This record gives sequence, C-alpha cells and structure tokens, in this order.
Amino acid sequence: MHMAKGRNVLIAQSGGCTAVMNGSLVGVVEEVLEHRDFDKVYGAVHGLAGILEGRLLDITMLAPWVRVRIAGTPGAVLGSGRRSLRPEEMPRVLEVLDKHQIGYFFAIGGNDSAETAHLMAVGAKDMGLDLAVMHVPKTIDNDLVFTDHTPGYGSAGRFVALATMGVGRDAEAMGDASPVTILEVMGRDAGWLAASACLAKREEMDAPHYICLPEVTLDENRFLAGMEEAYRRWGFAVAVTAENVEGPSGPLGRQQEPYFVDDFGHRYFDGAGRYLAQLVTSHLKVRVRFEKPGTIQRSLMACVSDTDAQEANLVGQAAVRYAIEGHSDSMVSLVRLPGRKYQCDTGLAPLGEVAGKVRAMPPEYLGDSAGQVTREYLEYASPLIGEPLPSYARLITPGMSWPSPKGLPPL
Amino acid sequence: MHMAKGRNVLIAQSGGCTAVMNGSLVGVVEEVLEHRDFDKVYGAVHGLAGILEGRLLDITMLAPWVRVRIAGTPGAVLGSGRRSLRPEEMPRVLEVLDKHQIGYFFAIGGNDSAETAHLMAVGAKDMGLDLAVMHVPKTIDNDLVFTDHTPGYGSAGRFVALATMGVGRDAEAMGDASPVTILEVMGRDAGWLAASACLAKREEMDAPHYICLPEVTLDENRFLAGMEEAYRRWGFAVAVTAENVEGPSGPLGRQQEPYFVDDFGHRYFDGAGRYLAQLVTSHLKVRVRFEKPGTIQRSLMACVSDTDAQEANLVGQAAVRYAIEGHSDSMVSLVRLPGRKYQCDTGLAPLGEVAGKVRAMPPEYLGDSAGQVTREYLEYASPLIGEPLPSYARLITPGMSWPSPKGLPPL
Repeated sequence: MHMAKGRNVLIAQSGGCTAVMNGSLVGVVEEVLEHRDFDKVYGAVHGLAGILEGRLLDITMLAPWVRVRIAGTPGAVLGSGRRSLRPEEMPRVLEVLDKHQIGYFFAIGGNDSAETAHLMAVGAKDMGLDLAVMHVPKTIDNDLVFTDHTPGYGSAGRFVALATMGVGRDAEAMGDASPVTILEVMGRDAGWLAASACLAKREEMDAPHYICLPEVTLDENRFLAGMEEAYRRWGFAVAVTAENVEGPSGPLGRQQEPYFVDDFGHRYFDGAGRYLAQLVTSHLKVRVRFEKPGTIQRSLMACVSDTDAQEANLVGQAAVRYAIEGHSDSMVSLVRLPGRKYQCDTGLAPLGEVAGKVRAMPPEYLGDSAGQVTREYLEYASPLIGEPLPSYARLITPGMSWPSPKGLPPL
Repeated sequence: MHMAKGRNVLIAQSGGCTAVMNGSLVGVVEEVLEHRDFDKVYGAVHGLAGILEGRLLDITMLAPWVRVRIAGTPGAVLGSGRRSLRPEEMPRVLEVLDKHQIGYFFAIGGNDSAETAHLMAVGAKDMGLDLAVMHVPKTIDNDLVFTDHTPGYGSAGRFVALATMGVGRDAEAMGDASPVTILEVMGRDAGWLAASACLAKREEMDAPHYICLPEVTLDENRFLAGMEEAYRRWGFAVAVTAENVEGPSGPLGRQQEPYFVDDFGHRYFDGAGRYLAQLVTSHLKVRVRFEKPGTIQRSLMACVSDTDAQEANLVGQAAVRYAIEGHSDSMVSLVRLPGRKYQCDTGLAPLGEVAGKVRAMPPEYLGDSAGQVTREYLEYASPLIGEPLPSYARLITPGMSWPSPKGLPPL
C-alpha cells in the first residue's frame, strides 16, 4: 500500500433502484468537479462485483448535458447489485482501490450496502489505506435509521399516491362491474411506502379505505369488515398493501399455494396482495382486481417528486464536502429543520450503526384504528412527494337522491 | 310519446375507463353550450343502469373551471357500467328518455356500449321517438372498427411505453439480482396496448425483448429462446404480454391453478403474465419479476398523451355537431389525414357495423419475427402517445472491455 491519500474517487450504486439514485451519482460528480482535491472519478460497474473484477469506468469527463440526462434516467447507470462483502474478499477490494489510487469511496445504497461500505472503511483503516468512505442513502422503502427520510422514497410515494387516486376513481366509476381493488406495493420490512397511499385521500370516500403494513399484524376479520363497510357506503373499496404483511399464522403470501417450486424444492410465494384479493372475493362475492406495479413504482419518471430529485442531488454533493472535511465511515443524513415551511439540511450518521438496521414506522404514525395512518404521518410525508397532488372532480356521491332536487352536487 | 324532438341531451359513459373519457364528456357539454338547439344536459349515472332507474344528473350548468377539472379526472365522473340492454327493457328506456324530453343521446363507450346505443337508435325509430344517437368512441384496447384509432389508447399506450422503459432500466441495473421482468398489460381481444411497449425501444438492447399478443399463438420454445438470447446478450430481458394470450393448448392463464374458485365451482384464472413468469423462472433459473399495473395503466394522469386528451375532446364536440346536422345511429370516427405531419379529422361510421366487432392488429403490423412489431406499426402508433418519450442515458454496455481503453462509451 502506498502512503499518500489517493486523489481519485470511486462511486458505486447498489440495492434496489430508485427513480433518483442517478441524481445522487450526478450530485457526487458535480461536487467533485468543484474542488481541486481530486483527479479522476471512477464508477464501479454493478457495485461490489465491479470492484472485485476491476471493472471501473472513468466518468470524470461527463459533459454537462450528459449529467442532466443521467439524473433523468431511472435505474442505476453504473449498474446496481445485491452482493455482500465476504471477509476473505477484503484484500482484493483494497488492492483494486489502491491500484486506482482511490482516496474517496462514495456508496449510493440502502442498509445492506451500508454494511459493505462500513466494512470497507474498517478494513482500509486496518490495512493502513487512507480511504474516506461516505454512504449516500437511497431506498424507496424509507427504512434507514438516523435520517428524517431517504431519497427515493418521495418519488415512489408520489407514484403510489397518484396510482391510488387513479385506481380509486376507476373502481368508483366501474361500480358493481369491478368495485374492489387491492394494490400491492413494495416495502420489504416497513410500511412507509404503502402508507404514502393515504396522501391520496382527501375525503372519507376516497381511496385507500384500508392499508396493510408489515408493522401491524393483520386481523383478517377487521380487514374484511373495513372493506365491506367501504363497499356498502361508497359502492367501491380500495386497499393498499405492502408486499410483506403478516397475519396471526405468518406471512400472508405463504397462505397461498407457492408461485413456483424450483428443482431443489424451494418454494416461492406471491406477495400479500393476491391473498387479500382472494379473501375479499370470497367474502364480498364481487369482482376484485389485484394490481402490482412492481418496479414501475420505482422507475416511472413521470411521477418523480421534485423535492426528492433535489434532495438526491443534495446528499450526493454533501457527501463530497463531508469527505473533504475529513469525515469517513459515515452516512449523509437528511435533517428536517423546524418551522412551518418544509426544509431539510444534511447531517452525518455513524455508518456502523446504520448498517443492517431497519426503521419501521413508529406507533404515533400508525394510530389506533387499523388500516389507516395518523395526521402526524401525513404531515411528515406530504412535503416529500413534491408538488401538490392534482384535484379530481366528483359529481356523484352515494347519498344523492333522485331526481336530484338541487341539481349539481357540491364539488 | 310526444311528437316534437326533445331539446334535452343525455350523456352516458360505459365500459372500462380510460384516462380521457371524461375529456369526451366535457367535449360534448362544451359543444352543446355553443348551440341554441338544446335546453338541458343530463348525465346517466352508471350508464344504462342510471337510465333504467331514472338516475339522471343535470349537468347543464357546469362552471368552466369544473369542466377543466373533470377533463383532468380519471375514471368516469358519471359512473360507468357494463350492463347490456335486454329487449324487454327497451320500453322503459324510451319512457325515461321521453319523460326527460331527450332528443339527443351521446354514448361514450366501446364496442359493447355501441351495441346498446345502436339498439336504442333502432328502438326509438320503431317507437316513433325522434332521437339522435351518437356513439363517442373510447377504449384503451384500440379495438373499434371504422376508426384510425380510439381515444384512450394513446394515453394508456404512453403509460405502457414509459413503464416498459422504466422496468427495462431497472432490470438492466439490477443485473443478476433480478434480471428478468414480465409486464402484463390489458388488452382483452387485441394486442394494440401490449404492442405500444415497442415504442419504448430505441436500441436493440432496450426493453421490450419480446411481446406476446392475442393475435399470435405463443410458441413457448420460441418465446423462451428469445428471452434467453436477450438475457445472454444484454444481461437482462423484459417481455410485455397482453393479459389474454393463447398457446397451442388454449389461454396461457388457464395453464395455472385457478386463482379463485367460487361457491358454484366457477374457476377464475390469473392472466398470461404470471404463467410466463413461471415459465421463464424454470427455464433460466434466475429471479423473474411479474408486474401487473392493472387499472393504473388507464388512470395515471401523469402519463396522459396530450394528443389523446385533445382528440377525446374533439370526438365529443364532433358528435354534437353531427347530431345537429341530422346524423344518428353513428359513431364518430378518427380519420388520419395524409401528409408527413400527423393530423386527424373526424368522420362517421354506421353504429350497427361497429357494435360487437373487434379490430385485431393487422398482419402488416405483426411482421415476420415473433415477439416484435413492424416499423409500420411504430409509425402508426408513435404520434398517438403525444410528446416524444424521454431519452435516457446508458453508460454500460455488455460489449465493453475492461479497463475501458477509450474512457467513456458513446451515449
């Protein structure tokens, strides 16, 4: 190992994609170009795999118009990955970093890649390599600790809210032809994303009428009663569920036949939504739709939150400045400032304490009544999804009498 | 029955919703207000059901700002329906129309509601009721005959193209962590909507790599070979399938266990996508995602095609003018004008010949090679989805050598 701190920068992207994680990449690159501390900027292709195999792309000279285009591209332009670092691979990682004179490593990722980045920081220190390691947070799941929220969440949340408004109006219009919809969204261990559907609800009649979260063990009778009540009152009902929800006897997805059994006999299951759709079908005896936008919710650029895009860029830029100031083994956090107008600054969190941890929704956001969230959650989340959601018109409400004596109902 | 032609207008919405069918409603209302031929405008609540039950909403006095909001609302603000007209109900229908002095009936719908509207035109004539019946086309399926295309298709097609671009970039970024995605879109009897995914493809590497259409019996070996080839060449593969696709032994959805069996033993099945996902999983032994946006694809206003929104309004307005001119028992069609710049005018089609017919994709759009469409289809469809699709950046291509000798790859 050479002694002087390397003047080159390495960036990696890992974990599930978000609509704005390329914006964080651009933030890092832009800020690097502002300082004389650096020579080259490399991108690791498919994260850790690219480092191990020496596949580093020189992205120092990205033209400004290319950076703009990258920030508007979904996925991860460097390639992402889910590979975790095995202890015996550490020497190889450090060898590649040393060979490319990397003094600064920026890891754009979630809590799994925080673990890898932390191990690299510790490993470099042990081996005497002067390496600044900064973790740039991203995840649509919003489940990282030590930060107000995570870039990527706002855009996915905006998609989920808009999708909920849409499927709600569709089910309402279709009436008895297909009055119930179950919308399954992502969220491995936390319900933040499913909860964002509630941002779509302005009136009691609006979707969603029930949300199912990993944080709350589902009481099937209560769920069915909630859906039936909405259907009886409004003529339609919409539930939004996280992919992973547990009932008293375990994950709901596992209450169904396996979706696929591989050659080794491993069984793969659908998510909670399909099970819930079956449940409501058999209870209400009406047509129930089951929708699952999957990776669309994290890649549809038409639903990007402007706030989220701006913050993704911000955390990338801040990571570079913190590294220049001498920080390492840290994650850039978002810190909400007090005051009526939403504003966030950046801060630092110890990476070792972020790694592998999951931030579930706190009890004060879940409220007393099953299937809904509290006003505190709505106040927390609404600035994150960017500009105000559209207002839709409604001409027909179930309480109207015919012929309608007053002519037009209030909007 | 009274003799003079009624001066009131009735509008109904029916069938599956589109993102712009409220725009057609607004088009009818706006044009009605331009003429002295009319008194009141009524909306039938949930289509035929509302007529039969006398639930007609007076919408004559919608304020301009309300009309704007309605046009931006998904679903059907009057309520839609799938009820078809039984012969014994005809007297009741005509009684309601006569009672409300309806001289003009505008049916916003697809090929099922064309049938009902046609029967009403014939029935009114037989009974001596002077009724102008105009059908205002809408369907995301684009399967109506006698029209270049159908309002609703352009916006759903834009959603499908954007969603395909997004899930493609996501699968590409994730690489071996989840390299294959099957996206199931709507399309009951025709593949127009699934085909619109191909508008997202600029380079051979881009998604989609295979599309499955109701018009083409799926050869599973050819499909698997196509998906495997894409995966081997590009490191990821995306197929877009219509919900209804047939294999040699019938609908693909029915190759699976039923999704639900009701109390009468009726079996309900998933669509083609879930079956295809199982097929690819077992063939390639990699993680395959199955995404199904469902009603999101016809209700997400963030993906509305400006061309589609404008044409939806246009057909509504034209229907009123044709009715004033004395036409009846007709559908307003869209007629593409010759010339390099895309432009459409309206025309008329005999409603009796539209009713119940399905326009499948013609052979010249399907081409020789399975799983793709022809350039002719792309030229046909690309103006319909509105403003140009975004351009995304790509830094990594499978053919690159490491270390990359030329630095940055071409964009």
